[in-house]
Amino acid sequence: MAKEAATAIEPTREENYPEWYQEVIKASDMAENSPVRGCMVIKPWGYALWENISRVLDDMFKQTGVKNAYFPLFIPLSFLEKEAAHVEGFAKECAVVTHHRLEKGGNGGLVPAGPLTEPLIVRPTSETIIGDAFSKWITSYRDLPVLINQWANVVRWEMRTRLFLRTSEFLWQEGHTAHATAAEAIERTRMMLEVYRKVSEDYLAIPVITGEKSASEKFPGAETTTCIEAMMQDRKALQAGTSHFLGQNFAHASQIKYQSEKEIEEYAWTTSWGVSTRLIGALIMTHSDDNGVILPPRVASAHVVLMPIIRKEQNRDAIMDYTQGIADRLRKLAYYGRNIQVEIDSRDIGGARNWEWIKKGIPLRVEIGPKDMASDSVFVGRRDKDPRDKAAFRKDAFVDGVKDLLDEIQNNLYQKALDFKNTHTRPMDEKTDFDAFFTPKNTERPEIHGGFALSHWCGNAGCEKNIKDRLNVTIRCIPFGGGNEAGRCIECNGPSAKRVVFAKAY
Amino acid sequence: MAKEAATAIEPTREENYPEWYQEVIKASDMAENSPVRGCMVIKPWGYALWENISRVLDDMFKQTGVKNAYFPLFIPLSFLEKEAAHVEGFAKECAVVTHHRLEKGGNGGLVPAGPLTEPLIVRPTSETIIGDAFSKWITSYRDLPVLINQWANVVRWEMRTRLFLRTSEFLWQEGHTAHATAAEAIERTRMMLEVYRKVSEDYLAIPVITGEKSASEKFPGAETTTCIEAMMQDRKALQAGTSHFLGQNFAHASQIKYQSEKEIEEYAWTTSWGVSTRLIGALIMTHSDDNGVILPPRVASAHVVLMPIIRKEQNRDAIMDYTQGIADRLRKLAYYGRNIQVEIDSRDIGGARNWEWIKKGIPLRVEIGPKDMASDSVFVGRRDKDPRDKAAFRKDAFVDGVKDLLDEIQNNLYQKALDFKNTHTRPMDEKTDFDAFFTPKNTERPEIHGGFALSHWCGNAGCEKNIKDRLNVTIRCIPFGGGNEAGRCIECNGPSAKRVVFAKAY
Repeated sequence: MAKEAATAIEPTREENYPEWYQEVIKASDMAENSPVRGCMVIKPWGYALWENISRVLDDMFKQTGVKNAYFPLFIPLSFLEKEAAHVEGFAKECAVVTHHRLEKGGNGGLVPAGPLTEPLIVRPTSETIIGDAFSKWITSYRDLPVLINQWANVVRWEMRTRLFLRTSEFLWQEGHTAHATAAEAIERTRMMLEVYRKVSEDYLAIPVITGEKSASEKFPGAETTTCIEAMMQDRKALQAGTSHFLGQNFAHASQIKYQSEKEIEEYAWTTSWGVSTRLIGALIMTHSDDNGVILPPRVASAHVVLMPIIRKEQNRDAIMDYTQGIADRLRKLAYYGRNIQVEIDSRDIGGARNWEWIKKGIPLRVEIGPKDMASDSVFVGRRDKDPRDKAAFRKDAFVDGVKDLLDEIQNNLYQKALDFKNTHTRPMDEKTDFDAFFTPKNTERPEIHGGFALSHWCGNAGCEKNIKDRLNVTIRCIPFGGGNEAGRCIECNGPSAKRVVFAKAY
Repeated sequence: MAKEAATAIEPTREENYPEWYQEVIKASDMAENSPVRGCMVIKPWGYALWENISRVLDDMFKQTGVKNAYFPLFIPLSFLEKEAAHVEGFAKECAVVTHHRLEKGGNGGLVPAGPLTEPLIVRPTSETIIGDAFSKWITSYRDLPVLINQWANVVRWEMRTRLFLRTSEFLWQEGHTAHATAAEAIERTRMMLEVYRKVSEDYLAIPVITGEKSASEKFPGAETTTCIEAMMQDRKALQAGTSHFLGQNFAHASQIKYQSEKEIEEYAWTTSWGVSTRLIGALIMTHSDDNGVILPPRVASAHVVLMPIIRKEQNRDAIMDYTQGIADRLRKLAYYGRNIQVEIDSRDIGGARNWEWIKKGIPLRVEIGPKDMASDSVFVGRRDKDPRDKAAFRKDAFVDGVKDLLDEIQNNLYQKALDFKNTHTRPMDEKTDFDAFFTPKNTERPEIHGGFALSHWCGNAGCEKNIKDRLNVTIRCIPFGGGNEAGRCIECNGPSAKRVVFAKAY
């Protein structure tokens, strides 16, 4: 294979990161653009990832007492308008349903008919429609807390889209809770952010920074937005999940009221929190290399591919039996909430077979030839190593050790991503250094810059805006804990209580 | 409780079956109508049922080689128009997206803006958008079969809706497959219908008849539609799932072509098959009684509720510990793909507590009072028995036997539904008997009639239409196997090869 000397993906990350991303997805067969503007088709290899991520999240949600429910896809325009900041935030990206049937038009083709008296918005998020339900469900303090999650599709009309990262329709979960006190709602906001941190770091192997958004970056209608932020390999930040404390804003908008123990009518305090198929984009951008996707084992679409090498047709049955025997044993092993997922690829297409699986990012590739069988062995390639770096294992040792091997890969991926993030995150106290950090050295490659700057900010929206206008750099979050020493704002030199995370962002 | 003497649900099935259905759902807290016309809110107790049904189906699909994927919510109008019968079938019930943002209108309120060049239809089903993807994925016979399933929401605008049975938006799965030969596609159609039969009978405890639809009842665009049909307690039929052999109709419409082994370009043969949240309606209508829902244990939202009886506050800790100990043991037991799901209800609200759980249909209610604890026992009510009919169990015997108890309930429900269906299914050879069978005896209760008639039909659409016009009775299916003796058409007395199932239907 000509590819073996070079890399499987062209261009490389160094050559053109945005194009590399598109090519990696194409080569992995995870998703593709659809004929519907901005909407993607998630193919089986990509969807399996989402199934695995969803299952992990769902289990954790349920452990905290959250229950799943389902609310309408459509939101009446008047509902969206109930919360001023909220509708303002979403008005520019709404898919609007205006008719409920089709009929023959003048030219013989079908045209929309049956106009609706009130337009319906395809949900961009569900605070207002779920708020309406909560207002009926909740009457007494005894009804609280209400802890609900919904797995759903949402639509936010986007002009510039990118598979998984920004699409007009995406899949997500949205949690919505109502509480008797602000403190309890804030605690829930943080609790769910912690679930997101845990899933990102322990399952997706993506290290994240947790913190709070500045006022300009918070969710439309929220009091405070907390988030997890990750660093991609182009050193840009990606917001991977958000958890909002909504105060009583939506309770006022939807009249979510309860009678307290003291028989006083009070408004409830609500939260919402969500992660989406964007996590798959984050995973790809964090771990993949110039040979394609690298899947963290704990959420991988499959763990092991067995590739029998059938050179002489008369050996076929023996090799296939040997292969099947290994598959059967592996499939009985439990690994992080499901059994080891095994693919068997017996196609006779030469080296292309091996490279297909490398590009798909499967953690372990196992070649099984006549010699391996004769010595009761298998020949194993790890996706976190160089493609040529393979090792022979005794069959039993491989099967018995496969879970450790997968965990080793998982930990390697996490450590590598953590090292990368730490290397490119710098405390930055001088404005000239700050500007240089974010200014591309090479004008032909405007995406290359320093990474995350930990700098002081006075809290003034004007300084935030100046920096954004000058460098296209934003405050990704005001991190929780640590870095609490006081200092001077990187922009205006005014007093600052703590450092915040500045970065270019997706 | 005044209710204990009468029934918990008013009206009863006998008094008013359609209203009884609405009341049963309300009392069970499974779903409610939403402010969006025809769309429902599925509440946690109802959604859990859907999660369990989905998991069972998903496992079975995957065992047959099917993989999940996800396709756009929106279908361009031109796609829908590619298959003439298909668009004709769905045109009257399409939610149409015509704009992609909102802006301030003349009166200050928001109005739709950003008109789309081509209207988008919110998917009523996805043959055409998935067909487009298939046309890109498939080029050679080596790419076949393609076996895809999607879990999704769909919208079919309905004027008259009923929770779960007929809603403008519903949740479903839609399988779509492409094959090299007609025979293989037909085999797949039957294979998936068999999955539906198995899930209905073995998990939902709903006996079904499998068969083929007549031409007038088939899916718009299908060659043949096969189905499972169940009998509700008002003796009407409910179509609970369909599996379609689409021939090459959609392959022609979407240009799904492949090069055969002989290097000839051929059109693929496709299938589609689906079940929806309608199954929950079928389950409720099949098993519930005048005290509310009865959930079949294998898909029940939860299996056991433990109700500690705390009379003296000083006993609280001891009783709660005893209860928690039982819950911990039960929750470790595996039962049909998940662990036993236990609810603990320690509210002190008198008999209302017991009745709430009866109305919710939980299979086992367990009361735990000081006397039970003293004798290391529990007091158990089964939902398939009279509410007053409870039995004491030694605690260990209860825990050790709980799975058998649940299976006994499961089998009882199935047997009862099967007996009901058999009792009200009659071979019918005389037109006068046939008409009498379907004519209500009491004009005040037009829903009461005979049930399913197994009668001969000549195959003529005219006879089918006459019967429908006269009696509102349709051919539910031409059943597979059995009843193959020839006879005379119940309508025209013409020759008929076999009996078909006639019924009134949902």
